[in-house]
Amino acid sequence: MPNIKIALDAMGGDFAPEQIVKGAVLAANDPTRNFDILLCGPEAIVKEELKKNDYSGDAITVIDAPDLVAMDEPPTQVLKTKPKSGLVTCVALQKQGIAAASISAGNSGAMMAACLMILGRVANISRPAIACAMPTAKRQAILLDCGANVDEKASVLVDFALCGSVYAEAVMGYENPTVGLVNMGEEEKKGPEVLQEAYQLLKQTPLNFIGNIEGRDFIKGHADVAIAPGYAGNVILKLMEGFFELAHEVFGEVKTEKAKEFDLLWDYRNHGGGLLLGLNGVGIITHGRADHIAIRHSLFTACKFARAGVPAKIAEKLSAIKVSTEHTH
Amino acid sequence: MPNIKIALDAMGGDFAPEQIVKGAVLAANDPTRNFDILLCGPEAIVKEELKKNDYSGDAITVIDAPDLVAMDEPPTQVLKTKPKSGLVTCVALQKQGIAAASISAGNSGAMMAACLMILGRVANISRPAIACAMPTAKRQAILLDCGANVDEKASVLVDFALCGSVYAEAVMGYENPTVGLVNMGEEEKKGPEVLQEAYQLLKQTPLNFIGNIEGRDFIKGHADVAIAPGYAGNVILKLMEGFFELAHEVFGEVKTEKAKEFDLLWDYRNHGGGLLLGLNGVGIITHGRADHIAIRHSLFTACKFARAGVPAKIAEKLSAIKVSTEHTH
Repeated sequence: MPNIKIALDAMGGDFAPEQIVKGAVLAANDPTRNFDILLCGPEAIVKEELKKNDYSGDAITVIDAPDLVAMDEPPTQVLKTKPKSGLVTCVALQKQGIAAASISAGNSGAMMAACLMILGRVANISRPAIACAMPTAKRQAILLDCGANVDEKASVLVDFALCGSVYAEAVMGYENPTVGLVNMGEEEKKGPEVLQEAYQLLKQTPLNFIGNIEGRDFIKGHADVAIAPGYAGNVILKLMEGFFELAHEVFGEVKTEKAKEFDLLWDYRNHGGGLLLGLNGVGIITHGRADHIAIRHSLFTACKFARAGVPAKIAEKLSAIKVSTEHTH
Repeated sequence: MPNIKIALDAMGGDFAPEQIVKGAVLAANDPTRNFDILLCGPEAIVKEELKKNDYSGDAITVIDAPDLVAMDEPPTQVLKTKPKSGLVTCVALQKQGIAAASISAGNSGAMMAACLMILGRVANISRPAIACAMPTAKRQAILLDCGANVDEKASVLVDFALCGSVYAEAVMGYENPTVGLVNMGEEEKKGPEVLQEAYQLLKQTPLNFIGNIEGRDFIKGHADVAIAPGYAGNVILKLMEGFFELAHEVFGEVKTEKAKEFDLLWDYRNHGGGLLLGLNGVGIITHGRADHIAIRHSLFTACKFARAGVPAKIAEKLSAIKVSTEHTH
């Protein structure tokens, strides 16, 4: 089987192109790699960076994409006026069947829009969500939505649960993953109206729904998949980053086994970025501050994601749920 | 000046009456104490506990309150059928002018309802909020609402900002405290509609509004007062507790100066509990898992809160804002 190809936006993020190219080279030189990399950006600039990294192997192909996208450029404008940007190109290559996944650390709204417009959604999934693998006291949990949506309806939260559950099973290898709704109390009747409604809907799905989980439970790892509205999910994501940074500052010199485990599990550079779930394809939005370590992990995560065939599995699970829901009526 | 009196529900919380009475004795024996304690609960039980603690001083008076309140009893039912509970009694004593503040670690919904019904709101404050002093990388920040409300309107969030700002100034001694809105991005147009609306309203107040803050900024201590809907505030509060517990587990044996500082600042037992802001009086909801250390801190916090005259200052600031808003029209 030939290697699959992962398309990477070389010009996205605060430290592009330097850290992006460095991360691509790091992955390319990894003996466990079973994918090739399509590095999308202005050819001369990207090749210059590759030269700085002394890379001359054939795992990386540069795809010329001269347009540049600013971090705050309106997404629709990017799609219209920057078709030859690294960001749009890495998604278009997937649509063309050349790449199996697309990664950008750049303008996240534009990346979301590009994936949505170019790849489209899985049928019957209303809105894609950003899912992140988060550290807990036990094993990693999938948190979604981490900020792709706002003011969601209850049915959208159910879609999140479905997508997250499939991801946890197919990519993380969790059997019958537990799904929790991040809320302000454990009782069914607690919290915002939309969450109370989602609670009732989730009970009716065949997902392994364990009810509401509070912030403490999330950290303790009570749920494999934690569902939150985009607003709350984003706040949680950023708090976890802030907490890791603070812990690193306070306990940085500590080198006990436990401390090393904590560092490994909590460093967001090791989490592979924000996975767009609900798309007809594989899109990853990596942290704007992504360095080469983060980019390397995103590439490996993208490969796992693509090989697991998550979009098809989400579609499959959706129809299974439809059938089971019809049976119960 | 005679000591003010703080009324404490002896029967509230997971470890009542043992830890509550122990905390009261700890405070009573503290030479820096400038308040007396009214310990409300079934007289025989409370006196028995005091005996176990070998306390015979006159800083603690037992107020007989034989009714018992369960943690999950509906608030309205508690008010109607348990008027002689420690919870209701400690609030009633304040209404009668005997106590200057009321504290319970028990049924938080019932405590909120008792304070609201018995003490009432500051005029023109729509809903009281639970405010908590939270650790940050800099100094403590006031986070509100920590879960008293759900699905708030934008104007309610503005009330939170006002109350929190007054508290930070009057009790924490912060000069012109900065106020941030916890959101999923820094731009005005980010996040749920209600936050976008609140942003515009907050800009028009004379508060020191610094705009949106993300989860990372909150931990870094960018805002002295962090405003969030009750749902998000509660999730943040519980996450911070979870972080602290995890860090304690991972780094517990570490005894560097930095680690000790972290322990002191992040241990939620040192934070005084949830302060009800917007009431015509002083109400504190202490953590259900409060131990004697937490109870001792709640007593000292209640005393500071009462002496600072927060409710009157909130009313004052409200009229000042009304005047300034009228001027600008």
